[in-house]
Amino acid sequence: MALIVHKYGGTSMGSTERIKNVAKRVAKWARAGHQMVVVPSAMSGETNRLLGLAKELASGSLGSTHDRELDMLASTGEQASSALLAIALQAEGVPSVSYAGWQVSVRTDSAFTKARIESIDDARVRADLAAGKVVVITGFQGVDDNGNITTLGRGGSDTSAVAIAAAMKAAECLIYTDVDGVYTTDPRVEPDARRLATVSFEEMLEMASLGSKVLQIRSVEFAGKYKVPLRVLSSFTPWDIDINEEAKSGTLITFEEDENMEQAVVSGIAFNRDEAKISVLGVPDTPGIAYHILGAVADANIEVDVIIQNLSKDGKTDFSFTVNRNEFAKAMDLLKSKVMPTLGAAEIVGDTKICKVSIVGIGMRSHVGVASKMFRVLSEEGINIQMISTSEIKTSVVIDEKYMELAVRALHKAFDLDQPTP
Amino acid sequence: MALIVHKYGGTSMGSTERIKNVAKRVAKWARAGHQMVVVPSAMSGETNRLLGLAKELASGSLGSTHDRELDMLASTGEQASSALLAIALQAEGVPSVSYAGWQVSVRTDSAFTKARIESIDDARVRADLAAGKVVVITGFQGVDDNGNITTLGRGGSDTSAVAIAAAMKAAECLIYTDVDGVYTTDPRVEPDARRLATVSFEEMLEMASLGSKVLQIRSVEFAGKYKVPLRVLSSFTPWDIDINEEAKSGTLITFEEDENMEQAVVSGIAFNRDEAKISVLGVPDTPGIAYHILGAVADANIEVDVIIQNLSKDGKTDFSFTVNRNEFAKAMDLLKSKVMPTLGAAEIVGDTKICKVSIVGIGMRSHVGVASKMFRVLSEEGINIQMISTSEIKTSVVIDEKYMELAVRALHKAFDLDQPTP
Repeated sequence: MALIVHKYGGTSMGSTERIKNVAKRVAKWARAGHQMVVVPSAMSGETNRLLGLAKELASGSLGSTHDRELDMLASTGEQASSALLAIALQAEGVPSVSYAGWQVSVRTDSAFTKARIESIDDARVRADLAAGKVVVITGFQGVDDNGNITTLGRGGSDTSAVAIAAAMKAAECLIYTDVDGVYTTDPRVEPDARRLATVSFEEMLEMASLGSKVLQIRSVEFAGKYKVPLRVLSSFTPWDIDINEEAKSGTLITFEEDENMEQAVVSGIAFNRDEAKISVLGVPDTPGIAYHILGAVADANIEVDVIIQNLSKDGKTDFSFTVNRNEFAKAMDLLKSKVMPTLGAAEIVGDTKICKVSIVGIGMRSHVGVASKMFRVLSEEGINIQMISTSEIKTSVVIDEKYMELAVRALHKAFDLDQPTP
Repeated sequence: MALIVHKYGGTSMGSTERIKNVAKRVAKWARAGHQMVVVPSAMSGETNRLLGLAKELASGSLGSTHDRELDMLASTGEQASSALLAIALQAEGVPSVSYAGWQVSVRTDSAFTKARIESIDDARVRADLAAGKVVVITGFQGVDDNGNITTLGRGGSDTSAVAIAAAMKAAECLIYTDVDGVYTTDPRVEPDARRLATVSFEEMLEMASLGSKVLQIRSVEFAGKYKVPLRVLSSFTPWDIDINEEAKSGTLITFEEDENMEQAVVSGIAFNRDEAKISVLGVPDTPGIAYHILGAVADANIEVDVIIQNLSKDGKTDFSFTVNRNEFAKAMDLLKSKVMPTLGAAEIVGDTKICKVSIVGIGMRSHVGVASKMFRVLSEEGINIQMISTSEIKTSVVIDEKYMELAVRALHKAFDLDQPTP
């Protein structure tokens, strides 16, 4: 009765047995009268296997010159699993057809290995849906204006699913994954973590960007921009559970604040050890210095997260920021070879043994003293804070990686996240 | 100095170590000044792995309804190996770019799993070559007019390579494989088999179609049609052997008969146990009966090889033909469900335990008694002949599969193929 997009992660597609279960689940939704579009990830392990081969061939040193070919390579994993799912659906008696990104014109820019979707031409998909077919679309990939295959970066299938749901004005986009929803924090770190029945789009955005690995951040941005109702739920419930029960399970990401509802001050604790810190020391404190450093980094397509500039002393200042650990070496090279010589900085130092821990909550908007409570809790545990970054609904700290679990558990308890919501 | 196409089979691409060797070999040719286009197969085992997964999902019964999805699936193997080879070439310091079939517009018809190439648009490839790049093009695959991915059938990468060589007017197409040329017969069956330095296009066509598995038949047809100089050679010689020596190794497929050369009467013995025999017994001997039976088979896209119609007796006749064993069940089903009811045939019987053995030679054109010598040799070995088929340069017999090796060895010896050419 409605157009629904399902997305299945690599674990859900991890074996023929699991693919059969996905097919049975999708068939159940199709038989209930829904028009179904399904976006599967590559079978778990496949992308790593392929990139491992590439690494061997490049003698361990994959660089940006390889990015176009890496996308040619990695995109095959999703294409294969899409075809396999279409075959499994046919075996369930459900007419089905699969498409690679370029076949339904998932247009992206040309930023290989981390492309952004620009448009989707859904005419072909709509025709198939009208003809009663389930349409399987390969996630994670697209095609640029020159006909090159691009990929969207790790977890990109989430973004594909949401972008397709947005383009087709789907009633809901269901992200099936190996967790059953969004938690107050990672239950592997804090066993008392609780599942949230709903979470606001903004909180989810902060959680995702901060490293709660449930959804890729861009998928949440897309969902917010186009108001795509988005639900995260488990693909490990039995495929034949009641469809109405299934439709209400997991965590729904909401777009409107319920004014009547008492918001928890803090909804969750996010953390992330994928970043590394770079400090440029003894920089002349002149106008344009931040642009001089970060412009070069941005031009190299390296994303920067936390940025700190210290108070100036004797006309010199220190400038620190974090980047993804995968891009740490590239960023350091760039700064040493291109930026330092023209900058007159005294020194560039890097640290990969850091982590970022954040408290996130819509309620922080209307409550004061939340950040200072966070700093007090960390101080009581003897954890030194290296960097601080704040936004309206989150406060993040960069600390030594070794304190990560301790910090998460202490904050989870201090903000009463282990207690059932009233 | 010339435009050269290299094709590497699955065994040659079977591991990262082997892919590195392919890259080194191609780099050697590129450094010698040649413009290089390379067509690699999927890594050995990959296509079978993917189709094995599909088979599991279809509960063992893959049918023609799955063909489109099987092509989506199987084409990923070649795409991955092409990207890997491009990366390996870059690691060798050779600029390289890889393309999927659809990206350089290898246009085919829509006969999924056995499509035929209709055209290739080489503009993009020429631009890359002019820019000094080695261009890697995925073999085995293409795209139809509706933007569906197609594959060319097993061994289709040979055809891709020759079609690309033809479209680009390459100076030579080198097919690197795990054998070092074309032999008088398969050395695994007859240890005294000898390598042929040259073989005529027509002989090669018969050898390939009869099951000497060196080259896919369509690649030889293409080579003949467009007069593409084609060489079969080993990818297991050291990559750094002298390029002039390498350029003369293997077997060259020739297009013009050398009138001055004494042709051997028979150049080789081909054999094939990929076929099955179907006999339609007690068919009314009326005009149009062959079309009635074989038209239905052809409409189902099943290829028929040997065809025999017996002498009529009491207004009834028997009609036998062979098909590929993979299509035997499909053909039997079709005949039983669609053809028999309207035909009034008494019975349809099938036999999958047959083989076909053939003698092939340009010299047969000008020599008589070659076929009868073949029949005598088989008779002396006590081998019963079930079907006979002849052409200008070959004679084939269908016999019980269990006599295959015996028949090949006896014929190889009887036609002096174990003796060095004078």
